[in-house]
Amino acid sequence: MGFGFTIVKKDEGSFRRLGRITTPHGDIQTPVFMPVGTQGAVKALTPEEVAGEIRAEIILCNTYHLYLRPGHEVIERLGGLHCFMNWHRPILTDSGGFQIYSLSALRKVIDEGVTFQSHLDGSTHFLTPERAVDIQRALGADIIMCFDECIQYPATFSDTEAAVKRTSAWAARCREQARGPGQALFGIVQGGMFRELRERSIQELRQIGFDGYALGGLSVGETTEMMRAVVEHSVPLLPEDRPRYLMGVGTPADLVECAGRGIDMFDCVLPTRNARNGMLFTRRGKLVIKNARFREDERPVDEQCQCYTCRTYSRAYLRHLYMAREILSYRLNTVHNLFYFTTLLDGLRTAIGDGTYGEFRRRFYEEQKNAGDEEEDRQ
Amino acid sequence: MGFGFTIVKKDEGSFRRLGRITTPHGDIQTPVFMPVGTQGAVKALTPEEVAGEIRAEIILCNTYHLYLRPGHEVIERLGGLHCFMNWHRPILTDSGGFQIYSLSALRKVIDEGVTFQSHLDGSTHFLTPERAVDIQRALGADIIMCFDECIQYPATFSDTEAAVKRTSAWAARCREQARGPGQALFGIVQGGMFRELRERSIQELRQIGFDGYALGGLSVGETTEMMRAVVEHSVPLLPEDRPRYLMGVGTPADLVECAGRGIDMFDCVLPTRNARNGMLFTRRGKLVIKNARFREDERPVDEQCQCYTCRTYSRAYLRHLYMAREILSYRLNTVHNLFYFTTLLDGLRTAIGDGTYGEFRRRFYEEQKNAGDEEEDRQ
Repeated sequence: MGFGFTIVKKDEGSFRRLGRITTPHGDIQTPVFMPVGTQGAVKALTPEEVAGEIRAEIILCNTYHLYLRPGHEVIERLGGLHCFMNWHRPILTDSGGFQIYSLSALRKVIDEGVTFQSHLDGSTHFLTPERAVDIQRALGADIIMCFDECIQYPATFSDTEAAVKRTSAWAARCREQARGPGQALFGIVQGGMFRELRERSIQELRQIGFDGYALGGLSVGETTEMMRAVVEHSVPLLPEDRPRYLMGVGTPADLVECAGRGIDMFDCVLPTRNARNGMLFTRRGKLVIKNARFREDERPVDEQCQCYTCRTYSRAYLRHLYMAREILSYRLNTVHNLFYFTTLLDGLRTAIGDGTYGEFRRRFYEEQKNAGDEEEDRQ
Repeated sequence: MGFGFTIVKKDEGSFRRLGRITTPHGDIQTPVFMPVGTQGAVKALTPEEVAGEIRAEIILCNTYHLYLRPGHEVIERLGGLHCFMNWHRPILTDSGGFQIYSLSALRKVIDEGVTFQSHLDGSTHFLTPERAVDIQRALGADIIMCFDECIQYPATFSDTEAAVKRTSAWAARCREQARGPGQALFGIVQGGMFRELRERSIQELRQIGFDGYALGGLSVGETTEMMRAVVEHSVPLLPEDRPRYLMGVGTPADLVECAGRGIDMFDCVLPTRNARNGMLFTRRGKLVIKNARFREDERPVDEQCQCYTCRTYSRAYLRHLYMAREILSYRLNTVHNLFYFTTLLDGLRTAIGDGTYGEFRRRFYEEQKNAGDEEEDRQ
């Protein structure tokens, strides 16, 4: 069984929709949030927990990290990434373009590819579009991404234009490279904050033709308003019959807004990273668990939440674990935050399906605003 | 239901036995190994995993740590330690004597009690036998320990004699202090490496009378042979109808040897701490997971082991997680090591019950010696 995308329900008068992505490792209901498993593990959790408690239907792993350690050949010889990490649902791997931009030292981009230094040991590597596909074929993800050139924010028009041109040329080369059976390939739109360049990037990628289209080059320092404007402007230009993926975004409000604007797929380290920093998402806003006022607070993190953490532990215990730097703290916080994201997406899909997205969105902001009695806003 | 101890089977011609300890939170089959949950959590694991996967019937928590953070009054107001940490099987709390000796700065011992500085923030505290019992009553453990004076190794006869004298006086004061309903109180034998002082300590504690007797003042730097000699010499002097607890010990071989000499209860940080350092216990000896020869090793840590980690993951993946410092590494290693200890104690109890301890012990050493093909010995 290969890759496919079906629109289950289309909203009238907007670009939002419900969909179903089919992959060799199972189906995905969209809009979907993909937990990030950078190094072949969703940090602090087992795959059983990610599939069971969190109900994730797909995760994202990072090509850049797995290429550097343990190496894609190692993973291939061990039966591929699914087998290696014991996750048997769909996996999407990014191409490494963003991490080379954000993590590595001495990045040097030429038309052929990118020379960069590993953030782990300073060793020098050369990655090309062809090689990025080869690595992702070895990893065996269900959805793989084109190798793109991500540039800094802010950037000049001409620098951004050059990155769009190169990203399109690289996308065509990725498209020509052999993939594994059933592997889908998504193109990545660049173009920075320039409408004209976003349009050009989309046109060029559409001409090549991909199984899905991602908006890249975001979460690089631009404002929330800029990011949402790019989404609003780009979505209508993307082919309706392909998944639309917004890379590296974002906050709960970003998900509500961008799913409302027609985005089908999201990934972000926010729920997992913030969990490890003791910042918990709730219906009533953020909760900073180390705050002294939780010292003897017997209530769960979120009284409406049905996750294992909220069913089982008090804020006082979670605060204690965090202060004591217990590993269990990272686990329990991660379970809660990812469950919050899953539940938020459940709500969004239900609302889109029922045609009550506007009401859902209104209630979302009202509840977040109601954080007053928790004082979370004042953290 | 209060505390009780029943001898289920007594070996002829030795001091080893099978027993059952009864507590308000359930029964414990002895000999037993107690995983350590220092700060109100067995590091990296949930209580469900400790009870389920590990099948632990009792855990140990540290009074010293919980007194300093979050504070015993906080835990008491939140319903006690069982409720606080969601562990509903028996708990044993130590008295803090050993941690004041091993962790705190500027320890000053007088007959009334001990002044010490917190290892967390340098704050000064004064602990007395009465207060140690009060704290443990507030925590609500099923088995609590007398406040003892632990001294360094080596120590002179007269210093050790003074510590025995004080430990006995303090034990009498602990015995007089009010405990919670159903809470058992164990005495702690001191006396260093001096047979005469160990005997005196035991006699004095027996005169006071306790629900169980612990051998303390060990794991302080003495050799394995010295420790085992203290056990061999002390066990026959302890009352037969009370549990015998060897504090802070030890390696798998120590458990085999000391259960064979009549010890009923053990606790040690070895399986949990070594797990976090990437050292795994197997039937064939130790395995240092970061070793490069595991890079593509598809085998489980221990092919005979039935734990979640061995059922699910390759050495190659565990090595990758360890090298990448993934939190999941600590979890999976901890599950394996504690499971190994549980399984070892299962085997010991079966062997003692069947009267085949000698055969069990012989096979244990033979298997450990057979580590050759794994080369674990040469790490």
